[in-house]
Amino acid sequence: MTDASDFLAADWGTSNLRVWRLGADGQVKVVRRLPLGVAGLKPGEAERRLRQEIRPALGAEDLPAILCGMVGSKMGIAEAPYADCPAGAADIAQKLLQTDERTFIVPGLRCTRPDGYPDVIRGEETKVLGWLRLDPRRAQGDHVLCLPGTHGKWVLVRDGRIQQFLTCMSGELFALLSEKSVLRPGAPPSDPAAFAEGLKFGAADGPLASRLFTVRSRMVGQGLPGAKAASFLSGLLIGDEVARMPQLLGLKRGSTVGLMGDTHLCALYGPALTARGLKVELADAEQAVIAGLTALHGART
Amino acid sequence: MTDASDFLAADWGTSNLRVWRLGADGQVKVVRRLPLGVAGLKPGEAERRLRQEIRPALGAEDLPAILCGMVGSKMGIAEAPYADCPAGAADIAQKLLQTDERTFIVPGLRCTRPDGYPDVIRGEETKVLGWLRLDPRRAQGDHVLCLPGTHGKWVLVRDGRIQQFLTCMSGELFALLSEKSVLRPGAPPSDPAAFAEGLKFGAADGPLASRLFTVRSRMVGQGLPGAKAASFLSGLLIGDEVARMPQLLGLKRGSTVGLMGDTHLCALYGPALTARGLKVELADAEQAVIAGLTALHGART
Repeated sequence: MTDASDFLAADWGTSNLRVWRLGADGQVKVVRRLPLGVAGLKPGEAERRLRQEIRPALGAEDLPAILCGMVGSKMGIAEAPYADCPAGAADIAQKLLQTDERTFIVPGLRCTRPDGYPDVIRGEETKVLGWLRLDPRRAQGDHVLCLPGTHGKWVLVRDGRIQQFLTCMSGELFALLSEKSVLRPGAPPSDPAAFAEGLKFGAADGPLASRLFTVRSRMVGQGLPGAKAASFLSGLLIGDEVARMPQLLGLKRGSTVGLMGDTHLCALYGPALTARGLKVELADAEQAVIAGLTALHGART
Repeated sequence: MTDASDFLAADWGTSNLRVWRLGADGQVKVVRRLPLGVAGLKPGEAERRLRQEIRPALGAEDLPAILCGMVGSKMGIAEAPYADCPAGAADIAQKLLQTDERTFIVPGLRCTRPDGYPDVIRGEETKVLGWLRLDPRRAQGDHVLCLPGTHGKWVLVRDGRIQQFLTCMSGELFALLSEKSVLRPGAPPSDPAAFAEGLKFGAADGPLASRLFTVRSRMVGQGLPGAKAASFLSGLLIGDEVARMPQLLGLKRGSTVGLMGDTHLCALYGPALTARGLKVELADAEQAVIAGLTALHGART
């Protein structure tokens, strides 16, 4: 089953590693999911684990490897300098960082946001490239892809190249506020009606830091239970994001947005986007990252 | 120097206790500042410390005492139920919680915000009442007071009563993001130009959670030093607050806003408010809380 044209491909992020042995056309031959996120590794450990454990586990000791994600940061094997937008597969393939005779790391991207500030991405660029490949209609014109997460990304693609993107740290804010702030609901979110109410309030005027405090005043002043408070908080943050982000990207009502991420987050963002008058097209992140890594491997060889 | 009409007055908050023996007209006879914030006390400890240590330290064993702040919450001596807005000194004095034959706790206030959600305050109501007393012109018409802090308050006073208020947790967000988030600048804020730039970006469109991420992308992508990043973050949060809060309270350009709080915060908020076309009138918080406690003590007796 091993073929000389097989290669090793990995999506190696802060918290997790997903690694595949793929055929030249991206067909999956072996897959492993390992709790080896680079945030938990010591200096030098990522490179050593790749060589001593990961390559052997996939029967890929001598195959070329292409890795994307935070493995290309200081925490990982080596820092792959950001490539600048606009960037398509060919541009990114030219900037791959080679770390030994057969290992290549995908660079992150850097862009200037519509508000003039810089933004950076590392890992999602590969998913976006793959998503582009999965439907030839995406090769032309403008498309927007939303990738919710700890540091969610909204990516504008133009004529097959990544034009611009905006990070939105709603996920990290939710975690911080749920666990470390005075809003601490003390229960996980589990109330769809409270989430929907939060979404609506997320679109309202006023400083976010003030709207957030109502999570506490509703608990203290109205006895709102923790599970409802957590859902309201989640809705408020996602609502603030989906109410304001489309405008920054020039998205009009009725436009289509691709949505890619874990099932739980997509189940929250999907209805939130629909409520803002956008059409949602769900996309599979694993399929996309495999297609992206395959495209970059192909562009290199 | 002790007079039968003296009384003990305390501003007893989460982190600090300030306590005075006052004459009937509010003249300060003794003052103590103690690191006895209720957040650090065990159940029952606040009441015991008041009786065994604080009253004796001020020669106030047998004097009436009036206490405001978080001492009136579950963490403190006893929970004084919130009074409803609008509320003036007479309304609040009627709701004082008596916890022994000579000790009275000021209730917090509850209101409905312009956006329909509840808000709560505990401690600041007394400062606002005192601030009203310090200038007789404030007894009529609408006045707005901004009290920046961990949970800053914007208070609308109408005809001498507290009409409505909005909490803004910019201070807590700044602390959380500086210490616990991916934005962690690793240095305290110390760059006025970066603060001013943050203020300006605070007024811009787009989700706050996305604008916040530029703190990181500027550090990672442009090598912005930590002290500048911290100032930019501080400006961004305060800028988002001062750009959006006046509108919620119906404040027009050219209106006057009272500003009361610690010197450092007032030095940040003052120019931020001025930049939004508001006139700033600085007020002394200690003078105000003494005047407020004196007014409430007087309204009771």
